[in-house]
Amino acid sequence: MSSSTAPVRRLWRDVILFDGLKTHPAPMTVVVEGERVTALFPSGNDHDKNLDVQAIEEAVEMGRGGVMTPGLIDCHTHLVYGGQRANEFESRLEGVSYADISRRGGGILSTVRATREASEEHLFETAAARLQAMIDDGVTSVEIKSGYGLSVEHELKMLRVARRLDEQFKVRVFTTLLAAHALPPEYADRADDYIDLVCNEILPAACKEGLVDAVDVFCEHIAFSLEQCERVFLAAHDLGLPVKSHAEQLSLSGASQLTARYRGLSADHIEYLDQSGIEAMAAAGTVGVLLPGAFHTLRETQFPPIAEMRSAGVPMAVASDANPGTSPIVFPTLMLNLACTLFRLTPQEALAGMTYNAALALGRTDIGRLHPGAVADLCIWDVDSPAELAYAIQPGRLRQRVLKGELTHG
Amino acid sequence: MSSSTAPVRRLWRDVILFDGLKTHPAPMTVVVEGERVTALFPSGNDHDKNLDVQAIEEAVEMGRGGVMTPGLIDCHTHLVYGGQRANEFESRLEGVSYADISRRGGGILSTVRATREASEEHLFETAAARLQAMIDDGVTSVEIKSGYGLSVEHELKMLRVARRLDEQFKVRVFTTLLAAHALPPEYADRADDYIDLVCNEILPAACKEGLVDAVDVFCEHIAFSLEQCERVFLAAHDLGLPVKSHAEQLSLSGASQLTARYRGLSADHIEYLDQSGIEAMAAAGTVGVLLPGAFHTLRETQFPPIAEMRSAGVPMAVASDANPGTSPIVFPTLMLNLACTLFRLTPQEALAGMTYNAALALGRTDIGRLHPGAVADLCIWDVDSPAELAYAIQPGRLRQRVLKGELTHG
Ligand SMILES: [Zn+2]
Ligand SMILES: [Zn+2]
Repeated sequence: MSSSTAPVRRLWRDVILFDGLKTHPAPMTVVVEGERVTALFPSGNDHDKNLDVQAIEEAVEMGRGGVMTPGLIDCHTHLVYGGQRANEFESRLEGVSYADISRRGGGILSTVRATREASEEHLFETAAARLQAMIDDGVTSVEIKSGYGLSVEHELKMLRVARRLDEQFKVRVFTTLLAAHALPPEYADRADDYIDLVCNEILPAACKEGLVDAVDVFCEHIAFSLEQCERVFLAAHDLGLPVKSHAEQLSLSGASQLTARYRGLSADHIEYLDQSGIEAMAAAGTVGVLLPGAFHTLRETQFPPIAEMRSAGVPMAVASDANPGTSPIVFPTLMLNLACTLFRLTPQEALAGMTYNAALALGRTDIGRLHPGAVADLCIWDVDSPAELAYAIQPGRLRQRVLKGELTHG
Repeated sequence: MSSSTAPVRRLWRDVILFDGLKTHPAPMTVVVEGERVTALFPSGNDHDKNLDVQAIEEAVEMGRGGVMTPGLIDCHTHLVYGGQRANEFESRLEGVSYADISRRGGGILSTVRATREASEEHLFETAAARLQAMIDDGVTSVEIKSGYGLSVEHELKMLRVARRLDEQFKVRVFTTLLAAHALPPEYADRADDYIDLVCNEILPAACKEGLVDAVDVFCEHIAFSLEQCERVFLAAHDLGLPVKSHAEQLSLSGASQLTARYRGLSADHIEYLDQSGIEAMAAAGTVGVLLPGAFHTLRETQFPPIAEMRSAGVPMAVASDANPGTSPIVFPTLMLNLACTLFRLTPQEALAGMTYNAALALGRTDIGRLHPGAVADLCIWDVDSPAELAYAIQPGRLRQRVLKGELTHG
C-alpha cells in the first residue's frame, strides 16, 4: 500500500468539526496527508506558531464549509442473512399471533433456514446492497456478525461473505462470530451439546481461517444461559479473541457483569441493565451499546439506564442492530435521531456513540476520532451543525466521504 | 403539452403491483401511453382477449420485475421555511426547559422570524434540497403549506416559493394557505383581529394571485378556537376553496366535526378524535390524515383511533408533516414504517395512505391509483414485496420514477 512518492496532502477549510467527542467552537482547517490527519486548527490561524505553512499551501483544496465528523462506525449489525421477513411484519399487523407465525416456521429460524439455503454469492449480493446504503450514509467501519448459520459450514460461509465485503467495498468490516445466537432446530433440547459444537468446532474452525475478530453471545431465556455464555467466553479467551454480548435486552440475566469480568469490548441492548452491571462495565471499560432500532421495532418500553451509565462513566455507543427480524433498518444517521428521541441522548453523545465510542466497542482508538495522527476516515455533511444530523431525518446529506485519506464519495 | 405525433408507449413486465388500494396476486404487465396508463394485465396474458398485441409489441421495454406503486403522495408538509431548529432539539436534550427555550425566542415563532427574514430565493433553495430528497424517495405529488409568514407579504412569499418548486421540479405541488397556523407576535392577545386579517386580506390576496389550492387552520388551545377556524372556513367557502384542518392533535376541540361540516378534504393529526368526529368524517368523506413523524418526535402516547376509523370507513392517509419543529423528517418511505410500527396500520393501509387516500386528501382521484386511464405517476422499487417498503427502513430503494408518463429517475 505504501509508495515512495510523497503522499497527497488534502485540505478542508472552515468546517464545523465534531471530532468524535466534541464540537470545536471555531470553524476549522483540516489537513490530511496520505492515510492520516496531520493538522487541525482554527481557520484563519494558518500562519500561527508551528504550522508548516508550505505544507498547507501545497495541499489540494477539498472544499470549504459543512460539518466534518469522523466516518460513522456501526459497531453492531447482522448485515449478512438470507431472505427477509416483510411477510411476518405484515402478518403480525394483520392480526396473526406470534404463536401462529412461529408455527408457520417464522421468526429467527426462518432466517436460519434461508441463510443456510443461500449460496455465498447470493448472501454477498444481498448484503452488498445494504452495505452500499450504509456507505452512502457515511459509514466507514461496520461490524458484521454471523449467527444465522449455526453450523460449521454456514457460520463460516457468513463470515467469509463479511470478509469479501471488506475486500470489495471501500469500508472496514469487523467480523464477529455469533454462533451462540439461537439454538438450531437439530439441537432442540440439547443446548449444552450445541455449545460444545460452538466451542470445540465452529469457533476453532472460523478462527483458523482468520474469520473472527471477536466473539459474541446472546444471553437470554429465549437463547443461552449465563453458564453457556461463559463457556463460549472461555473458549474465545483460549484463542485470544475479545468477547461481547447481547445482554439484558428482555430481562436481567447478569450477562453484562459476565462480559465485564472477561474484559469484554461491549455489552449490547442493556435495557434491563442494573447498577452492579453498570459498575462492573465502568470498571472494565466495557462499552454499553444502545440499539434504538430494535427498541423502536419491538415497541419496547423499558429504557436502558442512560443517566446511570452517564454518571458511572460507561462509554455509550449507538448501533443499528441491522437484522431482518427486530431492526430491518439500514440508515445509520436515523440511529442518531432514535438515540436522542427515544433514549434522550444529547446529539453530541449520539454522535460520539457512532464514532469514538463505537470504535472503542471494536477495540480501536485510531479511528472514530479526528486529531493529528488519527486515521483519516471522515465525512463532510451538508448540514449547519453536528446536532442537525441527529435532529433531522433526511437521506442524501453526505457531501464527501474519505477512507484512509482517500476520497470515496463526492 | 400535446403533440401531433403518437405518444411513446412504455411497458413494464412482471412487476408486483400495488395499485393504490391493493396488491395484485399475479405479476403484472403495465403499459403507459403518453401521460396515461393504458393497459394493465397479468404477465403472460399478452394474447388474451381484447389486448392490442401490436401496441404491446411496439412498446419500449422499461424493465422487468420489482414492485410498482403509484408515485408517493405526501399530502401534509410544511416544506418551505427559514432556519432550522437543531439548536432547540439539542438544548431540550441538554435539559433546558420548554419555558426557557420559549423565553430565548424558540419554538414556532423562531421559524416565523427566520421565514420573514429569508428572501424568496433563499426559501426556494433550502426547500429545494428537501424536495429533492422527497423526489429521490418516490414522491410525485406533495402538498406544501404556508403558515410561517403570518402576514400578506410573507404568506404570499411562501406560496410563491411552493409554486416555483412546482414549475422547476418534476413533481406536482399542491399549495395550502395556513395563515391561521399561529398568532404572530404583533397580534399578541388580538387573535380575532388576526383572523380578520387572514379572512379579509391574506386569503383574498393569495387567492387573487392564484396561489391557493386549499385552506388550512390549526385548531388547538395553543393556536385558534373553533369559532375562529370556522370564520376562516367561511371565507374560504366564499372563494370556492376547499378546507382542511390540524385537528385534535393535543386535545379534543371538535375541529374534525367542523371540518366535516364544511365538506373538508381532510382532518389531520386526530390523535384525540372521538366517535362523533369519526362519524361526521365518514359521512362527509373527509380523509383522516395520520402524521406519525410528529407523534414520534413529540413522543406522544395518545394514539389516533385507527380501529374505529377503519370500521367507520374513514379513508386514512399518511403524511410526513415535514416541518422544522415537530417533524424534521424528509424521508417519505419512513412514514410507511412509522404508520405500521407506531399506529399499527397494515402495510397495505400505509401504502394506500400515501397513494390513493392521500390523493383523496388533495381532492384528486386521477392520481394515486394505477388502472387503465389513470395518470402515469408511478414508481418501481428494488424490493421483493410492497410490504417490504414499510417493513425495512432503507434509503435508495427507488429504481425508477415516472411522472405524467415521463421517466424522471433511473
Ligand atoms: Zn444483535
Ligand atoms: Zn402540520
